[in-house]
Amino acid sequence: MLLRLSGICLGCTLEWVCDWHDPEQLEELLDLELRDSGESHDQLLSRVRDVAKYSVKTNHPRFFNQLFSGLDYHALAGRLLSETLNTSQFTYEMAPVFVLMEHVVLTKLISMVGWPSGDGLFCPGGSMSNMVAMNVARYHAFPQVKQQGLWALPRLAVFTSQECHYSVMKAAAFLGIGTDNVFHVKTDQSGSMDPQDLEVKIMLARSQGAVPFIVSATSGTTIRGAFDPLETIADICEKHCLWMHVDAALGGSVLFSKKHKHLVKGIERANSVTWNQHKMLTTGLQCSAFLVRDTANLLQKCHCASATYLFQKDKFYDMSLDTGDKTIQCSRKVDCLKLWLMWKAVGTKGLAERVERALSLTRFLAEAIKKREGFQLLSEPTFVNTCFWYIPPSLRGKENSDDYQDRLSKVAPAIKEKMVKEGTMMVGYQPLNGQVNFFRMIVVSPQTSQRDMDFCLDEIERLGKDL
Amino acid sequence: MLLRLSGICLGCTLEWVCDWHDPEQLEELLDLELRDSGESHDQLLSRVRDVAKYSVKTNHPRFFNQLFSGLDYHALAGRLLSETLNTSQFTYEMAPVFVLMEHVVLTKLISMVGWPSGDGLFCPGGSMSNMVAMNVARYHAFPQVKQQGLWALPRLAVFTSQECHYSVMKAAAFLGIGTDNVFHVKTDQSGSMDPQDLEVKIMLARSQGAVPFIVSATSGTTIRGAFDPLETIADICEKHCLWMHVDAALGGSVLFSKKHKHLVKGIERANSVTWNQHKMLTTGLQCSAFLVRDTANLLQKCHCASATYLFQKDKFYDMSLDTGDKTIQCSRKVDCLKLWLMWKAVGTKGLAERVERALSLTRFLAEAIKKREGFQLLSEPTFVNTCFWYIPPSLRGKENSDDYQDRLSKVAPAIKEKMVKEGTMMVGYQPLNGQVNFFRMIVVSPQTSQRDMDFCLDEIERLGKDL
Repeated sequence: MLLRLSGICLGCTLEWVCDWHDPEQLEELLDLELRDSGESHDQLLSRVRDVAKYSVKTNHPRFFNQLFSGLDYHALAGRLLSETLNTSQFTYEMAPVFVLMEHVVLTKLISMVGWPSGDGLFCPGGSMSNMVAMNVARYHAFPQVKQQGLWALPRLAVFTSQECHYSVMKAAAFLGIGTDNVFHVKTDQSGSMDPQDLEVKIMLARSQGAVPFIVSATSGTTIRGAFDPLETIADICEKHCLWMHVDAALGGSVLFSKKHKHLVKGIERANSVTWNQHKMLTTGLQCSAFLVRDTANLLQKCHCASATYLFQKDKFYDMSLDTGDKTIQCSRKVDCLKLWLMWKAVGTKGLAERVERALSLTRFLAEAIKKREGFQLLSEPTFVNTCFWYIPPSLRGKENSDDYQDRLSKVAPAIKEKMVKEGTMMVGYQPLNGQVNFFRMIVVSPQTSQRDMDFCLDEIERLGKDL
Repeated sequence: MLLRLSGICLGCTLEWVCDWHDPEQLEELLDLELRDSGESHDQLLSRVRDVAKYSVKTNHPRFFNQLFSGLDYHALAGRLLSETLNTSQFTYEMAPVFVLMEHVVLTKLISMVGWPSGDGLFCPGGSMSNMVAMNVARYHAFPQVKQQGLWALPRLAVFTSQECHYSVMKAAAFLGIGTDNVFHVKTDQSGSMDPQDLEVKIMLARSQGAVPFIVSATSGTTIRGAFDPLETIADICEKHCLWMHVDAALGGSVLFSKKHKHLVKGIERANSVTWNQHKMLTTGLQCSAFLVRDTANLLQKCHCASATYLFQKDKFYDMSLDTGDKTIQCSRKVDCLKLWLMWKAVGTKGLAERVERALSLTRFLAEAIKKREGFQLLSEPTFVNTCFWYIPPSLRGKENSDDYQDRLSKVAPAIKEKMVKEGTMMVGYQPLNGQVNFFRMIVVSPQTSQRDMDFCLDEIERLGKDL
């Protein structure tokens, strides 16, 4: 209870990260059933309060559970306005402000990637952006696929690292390419793609009769925050005439920082980039830019269906402004306003400072971990992901015992259960490449401070010391 | 000017539907450029006002341009709360309230479709729901496609009507099936699929060596609001062992009305259904339910990638609540709250009344059109879509002249340009099956009244009488 209260003293604006209840309990508390008749305003207000009360506070300074967290009030204002205006980003006629705004925002992002020009659109999440990348790359290599399907093509092969985001697999399945045709390239100790193994895998695919067409490199892997070596990968892609996609959903935002943009050196040689602003830039879900270097209207050609009720050819304005046919969606939410408004509010410099602050806080956390007994880094963080084990006193010095790994694997889940039930913080855990369950802290929220880092380590120790 | 003012007198809460500017003008008015430094609060507030001012007012009672319109304040409250909580619908741990709420809402929708049980999820729009349907149907018929891709399968064939939504084509292209493998079934005079021709097309596909696997029927076509004969289509699907999908994005909401649900008779025999609540039920974008009759975890099997950092197998709660792996997305916005809150507020009865009111207003509009000189219905509306020509005095009685069709085709675009530039109303137009440009009014907004119907016809006449 004392520690719970200290959570407030340390300057949290919200008391708890979450207010855990078992599903059965929560169902009872909420009364979710939908009935024939409506309810009074008072009842509705109390329902709204309950929905907020029992939801996880992703903007809490001690929420480190996902790749997004924190809250920017300007971005929130943009989101509330987008919802209120309730429009769809089909055409200039329907969304004049947002067609122009999306263009300005995407053009700015394109210039930050380092391309003189390009094209793009906002997709409903990074997985969708990565899927679109794979489709565009396929169409670019084999335009006949749109009409004739994959039966008209040789078997295709996709290359990505072992530590890529799982959306690459989902994309291969969904696009009819098949997950067996995704070749996983080895990673080095830090989690970056091994370019030598990429060459090996390209040869392997060819020897099996498959035709390589895309390499999906990662800038900021989901678990360890690793950056693939883009320059070398670009050389390989050029040599083999492969589409180079960079999944920079998490890591793209280092482009704001002079100090850290070296992490994505070579990104300007990519053919396409996924970059989620709802992660490090805290625009709120969803804001995922899919960018292509192409300037020959590839997105339009690849995705258009030319519906006559939306994209009439006899309109009175420049119909190239009707960008909706570049997407695979029909109705498409406005995702640019929240980013644009926040950018206007804090400027490019303000966003750069946030990125640098997040990396510096991560560095602080890693150093704190190194100093603490019972904490062990998985590897030095290069970005905003800190992966570490907490080793309770009962396990210390027993690294060589037979059941050590098995017992260690149960520590993170046990601590996670306790922290969620107490509601003091939230952090993720997972195994990776044969290494048993470890914590992964993601530090991106502008609301988070060094005191929160210390609190988290204290809290993990408090919850885990008797395990 | 007088007529502009009358717009206010007639009881609009908002003055104009849109405040049209050419793109060059609007760019200047908005100053969209993103700069190094941030701006003052006053500047930001004025920007927010401008964004609202120059955006189309989709909640205006005279906005009839798309399949969505109008505003429900409870749903809006739900949207604003969803944005503020900013969570993703991955897992129970992350979104306890919304995992349970989505389940309750989907279960209710499933029961309305007429299935004893089923599964589902909310997708980012109806196009995505239709794509997911095609993928699930493919996986159901050929589960090896997920790993091996389409090369392991015979050429597949998709069946849908000539008046289906264009997302069926986009889905076939994106999923690697190819648009050539979509067989378009003829429609009758009202725009409904001709089941005899469906049988013919199935035979045709087979004779070409393709394997039929899905029929995508439509309940409420985009242009004419036609309903395919689901009972007969279900018989054909059963006979040929085909997956029956119903794209009821627009029309599904008739399930609320005892009076009109006969339009989707047989929907309970479908294997899957797309139903957008952001259309007739005015939840706001996006709210598209994808529902499957399957109860053997097909969605999960078809889409899962089992990411260890999200869907850990050693969690302390029932992991079947971690529904995020059923989708092709990773981060997924919360789409259920807006619908749930509105439903709680007005009850099933309240939603039923809205649906009936919309159909009754459409009927009023159609009758008004029939009584007016110079207006001509394309066909009797069966739903909320009213398609009609306005024939200016200069063209009346000249139906047999050589250039009649050509001149008529220019009338709707010319009137549309005028109405958008004046901002008094918005309505769509398009050609269809060789019939030249006609207007399509969609009446779904609860803010719309009979006076608005009369106003619209007066306005079209005013803007077009001198053409």
